[in-house]
Amino acid sequence: MQQVNLGIIGGGTVGSGVYNALRINGDLVTSRIGVNIVLRKVAVKAVDEPRPYSIPKSLLTTDWQSVVNDPKVHMVVELVGGTTIARTMVLTAIKLGKPVITANKALLSAHGEELFAAAKAHGTNLYYEASVCGGIPIIKAIREGFVGNRITELYGIVNGTCNYILTRMKLEGAEFADVLRDAQAQGYAEAEPSLDVDGFDAQHKIGILASLAHGFWVRPNQIYVEGIRSITRTDIQFASQLGYTIKLLGIIKSCKTVSTSAARAKSASRIQVSVYPTLIPNTHVLANVNHVFNAAFVRGDIVGDTLFYGRGAGKDATASAVLSDLADAALDLKFGTKTRVPPFVPHQPQGSVVPISDVVCRYFVRLNVIDIPGVLAKITRILGDASIGISSVIQPESSQSGTVPLILMLHEAPNGAVTRAMKKISALKVVKTEPVVLRVEDLQ
Amino acid sequence: MQQVNLGIIGGGTVGSGVYNALRINGDLVTSRIGVNIVLRKVAVKAVDEPRPYSIPKSLLTTDWQSVVNDPKVHMVVELVGGTTIARTMVLTAIKLGKPVITANKALLSAHGEELFAAAKAHGTNLYYEASVCGGIPIIKAIREGFVGNRITELYGIVNGTCNYILTRMKLEGAEFADVLRDAQAQGYAEAEPSLDVDGFDAQHKIGILASLAHGFWVRPNQIYVEGIRSITRTDIQFASQLGYTIKLLGIIKSCKTVSTSAARAKSASRIQVSVYPTLIPNTHVLANVNHVFNAAFVRGDIVGDTLFYGRGAGKDATASAVLSDLADAALDLKFGTKTRVPPFVPHQPQGSVVPISDVVCRYFVRLNVIDIPGVLAKITRILGDASIGISSVIQPESSQSGTVPLILMLHEAPNGAVTRAMKKISALKVVKTEPVVLRVEDLQ
Repeated sequence: MQQVNLGIIGGGTVGSGVYNALRINGDLVTSRIGVNIVLRKVAVKAVDEPRPYSIPKSLLTTDWQSVVNDPKVHMVVELVGGTTIARTMVLTAIKLGKPVITANKALLSAHGEELFAAAKAHGTNLYYEASVCGGIPIIKAIREGFVGNRITELYGIVNGTCNYILTRMKLEGAEFADVLRDAQAQGYAEAEPSLDVDGFDAQHKIGILASLAHGFWVRPNQIYVEGIRSITRTDIQFASQLGYTIKLLGIIKSCKTVSTSAARAKSASRIQVSVYPTLIPNTHVLANVNHVFNAAFVRGDIVGDTLFYGRGAGKDATASAVLSDLADAALDLKFGTKTRVPPFVPHQPQGSVVPISDVVCRYFVRLNVIDIPGVLAKITRILGDASIGISSVIQPESSQSGTVPLILMLHEAPNGAVTRAMKKISALKVVKTEPVVLRVEDLQ
Repeated sequence: MQQVNLGIIGGGTVGSGVYNALRINGDLVTSRIGVNIVLRKVAVKAVDEPRPYSIPKSLLTTDWQSVVNDPKVHMVVELVGGTTIARTMVLTAIKLGKPVITANKALLSAHGEELFAAAKAHGTNLYYEASVCGGIPIIKAIREGFVGNRITELYGIVNGTCNYILTRMKLEGAEFADVLRDAQAQGYAEAEPSLDVDGFDAQHKIGILASLAHGFWVRPNQIYVEGIRSITRTDIQFASQLGYTIKLLGIIKSCKTVSTSAARAKSASRIQVSVYPTLIPNTHVLANVNHVFNAAFVRGDIVGDTLFYGRGAGKDATASAVLSDLADAALDLKFGTKTRVPPFVPHQPQGSVVPISDVVCRYFVRLNVIDIPGVLAKITRILGDASIGISSVIQPESSQSGTVPLILMLHEAPNGAVTRAMKKISALKVVKTEPVVLRVEDLQ
């Protein structure tokens, strides 16, 4: 039986997870694919640092170059994270013609085009199933399972930390800061939580999925991002009252734009790519994806509606995705087909991302207003002048503070128009705090 | 660019769906995979029969052999269904070394081992993503995405007709026969519904998934099957009251069996494979898979819990899966790797299916009893003597008929013991009709 030797760079959470998964199920993989995958070396920062699964010292080295350059190492797994040294590591392996497997979404987001071009130039491949939605085989599903579909819409819960926080805020009626603190204590959120709660991690992932689905490389700066810091339990409660749940969604869709006939003619290749907290119907299956779980709701023009659900992070779920890539890479080495399914095919280079100001959707707006007559008239006049329709209003009984929340559900309108109207509304003397504007998706 | 020519046998619902999907998205597939797939011929029963999407007459023939034998046809799609002529068609193409794509679960269930052996002998492949769960890429997910996992449990809603009927029975409080009649009128159920409602279609599919996941070929006669004809709205209502929804589930799991130390030692390769109506918690995501949708809840020892959801049948969803296989087959022809991922690898030939009598689970039992004192005592004595514990009892107020329903939830017990106890209970004079016994899965 053919043997393929593996070198891993990174022996932390995911790295030790991959070591452990290979230890437990390596023989099973071998019996399934007919290739013996042998772990030859693991490069780590320090041999003695603590790790979730211990790795025998005989496998460890602190010299990553000795792993990548070892002529007996046939393929390389990069699990160090970050975008600087990781880029060098991946490029070094690619230049040696070795297949590389990575879970590094930040690296792909920042340097994907360069790395894919390098892989092509050196006749090798870069596999990254583990970079999006952890254990869910979403890359394979989109690239291979749905190869016959135009992906008209994709809504993804792709950040487990945000989903955990929003789930607990809803279930416990708690505020963001309190749940975040507890999540940090329990290890579900980082001490520096910005990458997760400000939406950047989701931005990396949704950019990768958008690029794969639509065939042109979507750069991070083309993706509009809002995180979940501004969500309050009041928003969650009013949304719930209206039949909605708030989730941080990555959204990719062939969108309705401010319509000109020229724009309509090109509409197939114009997509919305964004990340923001979104109201979705309580009854939709995505609204019931809770805690740290991830999910992607994918609509194809042939297949219709589909959903993929699973753990989006963690040493074991991520290791499962790495093992899937390892098996593909090992088969490609066995059959001499390293370029059979390239990492990225720019099949619609004319595609473009629609600026958020042109994206049309529905809105949930929460204002904090002085409880005097005529307030609603002032606000609705501004919206009316901007041709923005109101579909419903909730104004609870007055509180002792003299201000009341005022909740408006708005009909479909371009983001630009709503932003301009909100600026005017915010400037009204009767409006006491910055308006909260959340977008609504009915997923119909 | 390389060109691969395709011949389709079968121009009915799915066949015309594949024609249409290729017409709409063939160029897209070509741009994604770098192979031009050209449909050369479609063999049909009659040129003029009505079909959902019309196919140009220039492509049609009534001579399937002329399609398979055409030296310019490089790969063959079999979409005629059935297990006799379809077997001949598939074998003929395989013997010519041509890759075959099929959606025919009945054929695989009956003749899978023979067809896989023939594909191996002739150095070609047999692709069947479309045979299970329609548009959901579940074969690819299990075989490739979860190659690094032992699939410890799989619970599948794999028959859309049954799910449609059970969903409407629950939502409308309707009886089976009425919903079936309406489903037949609407085209969701066949005039002869046995294949669906008696569980045989689910049996075919779950056998394929069990074989793939566990590495030994599971024959249909090893799979215990009960359909949904005996489910009444009374069962659905009482189940709901107890917090459960009734779904027809295909179940594959490394199971708890009547324990002997010898059995325990071999437990990893002993699995339950069965199809029956099952009570699952209302709050579980599977309980919320409704109408004609399919879903598979898959638990892997590394990846944890995952779920795949989508349309399990229909011309378009099935065509999406066929196109995925077409792309794989075309790439395999381009790269000369027809045996890269074989249709089936018997990687655990020592595996075995546990007889249903040894399977341990929980139960929902509905009895119809005479409303006189001492009835419950008689019944509980029989269960107690068999060491079967009762976890809860519901006995509604007496009705005018003199009989009342009596609902028992039983603790875990082997199916054999419960069957024997039910025989004794059924023989009691106070029990008026055959007991309804449904199994319960908590999916924990």
